[in-house]
Amino acid sequence: MSEHDIRLELDDVRAAAARLKGVAHRTPVVTSGTLDATIGARVWLKAENLQRTGAFKFRGAYNRIASLPSGVRGVAAFSSGNHAQAVAMAAALHDLPAVIVMPDDAPDSKVAATRGYGAEVVFYDRYTEDRRVICEGIAAERGLAIVPPYDDLEVMAGQGTAALELLEQVDGIDLFVAPMSGGGLMAGCSTVVHSLLPDARIVGVEPAAMDDTRQSLLAAERIEVPVAPTIADGLQVPVPGELTFPINLRQVDEVVTVTDAQLVDAMVFAHERLKLVVEPSGAAGLAALLGGALVPPAGARVGVILSGGNIAATRFAELVAGR
Amino acid sequence: MSEHDIRLELDDVRAAAARLKGVAHRTPVVTSGTLDATIGARVWLKAENLQRTGAFKFRGAYNRIASLPSGVRGVAAFSSGNHAQAVAMAAALHDLPAVIVMPDDAPDSKVAATRGYGAEVVFYDRYTEDRRVICEGIAAERGLAIVPPYDDLEVMAGQGTAALELLEQVDGIDLFVAPMSGGGLMAGCSTVVHSLLPDARIVGVEPAAMDDTRQSLLAAERIEVPVAPTIADGLQVPVPGELTFPINLRQVDEVVTVTDAQLVDAMVFAHERLKLVVEPSGAAGLAALLGGALVPPAGARVGVILSGGNIAATRFAELVAGR
Repeated sequence: MSEHDIRLELDDVRAAAARLKGVAHRTPVVTSGTLDATIGARVWLKAENLQRTGAFKFRGAYNRIASLPSGVRGVAAFSSGNHAQAVAMAAALHDLPAVIVMPDDAPDSKVAATRGYGAEVVFYDRYTEDRRVICEGIAAERGLAIVPPYDDLEVMAGQGTAALELLEQVDGIDLFVAPMSGGGLMAGCSTVVHSLLPDARIVGVEPAAMDDTRQSLLAAERIEVPVAPTIADGLQVPVPGELTFPINLRQVDEVVTVTDAQLVDAMVFAHERLKLVVEPSGAAGLAALLGGALVPPAGARVGVILSGGNIAATRFAELVAGR
Repeated sequence: MSEHDIRLELDDVRAAAARLKGVAHRTPVVTSGTLDATIGARVWLKAENLQRTGAFKFRGAYNRIASLPSGVRGVAAFSSGNHAQAVAMAAALHDLPAVIVMPDDAPDSKVAATRGYGAEVVFYDRYTEDRRVICEGIAAERGLAIVPPYDDLEVMAGQGTAALELLEQVDGIDLFVAPMSGGGLMAGCSTVVHSLLPDARIVGVEPAAMDDTRQSLLAAERIEVPVAPTIADGLQVPVPGELTFPINLRQVDEVVTVTDAQLVDAMVFAHERLKLVVEPSGAAGLAALLGGALVPPAGARVGVILSGGNIAATRFAELVAGR
């Protein structure tokens, strides 16, 4: 598929916002005088950790399901992360059954949370089975629609509503910052920012251990990197999405990287200064600012997506103790 | 002073709300389907941990300082807790100098935060000196007005704006729950709830180790209890306030108590489910609901104040590890 085939327009995001109205939380935007003084800029943080199911993923999953043709019998997805719970809840809100394909070593808490929203969990062996094949088989057999985590225009449009809200809540920004994984959040958000504030700079943040999007944007083609350890489990996608990449190639100015230590520092800052629980992946934008990977011009107005907050208290305690 | 001399009216709180408009954060109200399902009621949590300086205390301090006569040269307060930072910031916003009297063994982080808002910190030896005498001496010498932590009508009125906002954000409640320490938050909030929703039940929460208000309400007179260990350092006031008590005696239906273990459980729940950092004292209302000290009628609509979020990440990690 050529990049010219991919069209995501501001109106798609606006249509998603209309579908999400009264369903998704209009999450608050928080500020910190300490943060602003530390980096010499003004920062507005969009608290998507307070979104339903604890992450921006709900926006995309709900919009995708709301856009399905009538007659669909249910939905299916594969994920061991935030997408699983987002699809489970979004399906429940549509009174549709959901099947989530998860690895059989997924944490009990995530399995329980997904089932808690009413979804059926189907396990696979991540060492011998292909989750996509299993998911597609179940979907075909039962007449279910698959909800992809990012490579889908309605998913991107839904995820982009985070930026649309941010620009309603803040009176103009010069710099927009968000984590990048498969690239759906950034594809949706960069479409909004690029359309409404064409002069604003758009920067993605990746873990230093897996900078596939940074490399891909520099090469102007999708580059796959090896899966490597990072505490940012939500950003461990080894290659940019097929549909998201051409959009981000046009609209993203730069990708910077952060270390695990910088992510923990940002999580602690969020805890102590913002009183918010942010998971490692969700703290990437804040980590880039606090750690110096991204230095905004003096006095710049910066909008940042805090993308998720799903981390167990014991895991947070371990990361703090190991600091 | 007779209890009949004490008058705090809804209009006092409304006047405070007008002064705080655009200055205090209109903090979000959060909900949790898991919480509602667990206790069989509908709960709205007012996130005052997201208030400026991380606690509801800012509301009272700001309203007190905004109500001072012109000609006051500055303000003074004694506190090693959230009141210190609240007074420091509220004074700075009025371009007034602030002197905060703190024990010389106060944590560096609290001293730094108070100084960070521009206040002068004066230390005293908590074993040999009386902080009130020191504070009054400085105030007299320098022409400063003392901002009390709770025993003051303007402080109570300011703190009551938390409930006024909650009732604007939620369409009616049957039960109002807040932590009780000196009693200022409850005096202000119960005045609002009692006036606007006279049929609503009003319940305070104290640590089991220091239930002075519970005992005092039962005896209909102020009873002092020994200072005892509890992780809820913000609630370690041994006797109800002189001015707050008669107000709460008229308006509070009941006080229930929670253990330290229940407070930690509630903090972990807030972390994992609400993605909010809540300090032990701030989690008291949630702990009463989750731990069973307070069992609302089935289907009741419950409003709870999460009163503060000032806890270091390392301290939170210790409490989680010791669970």
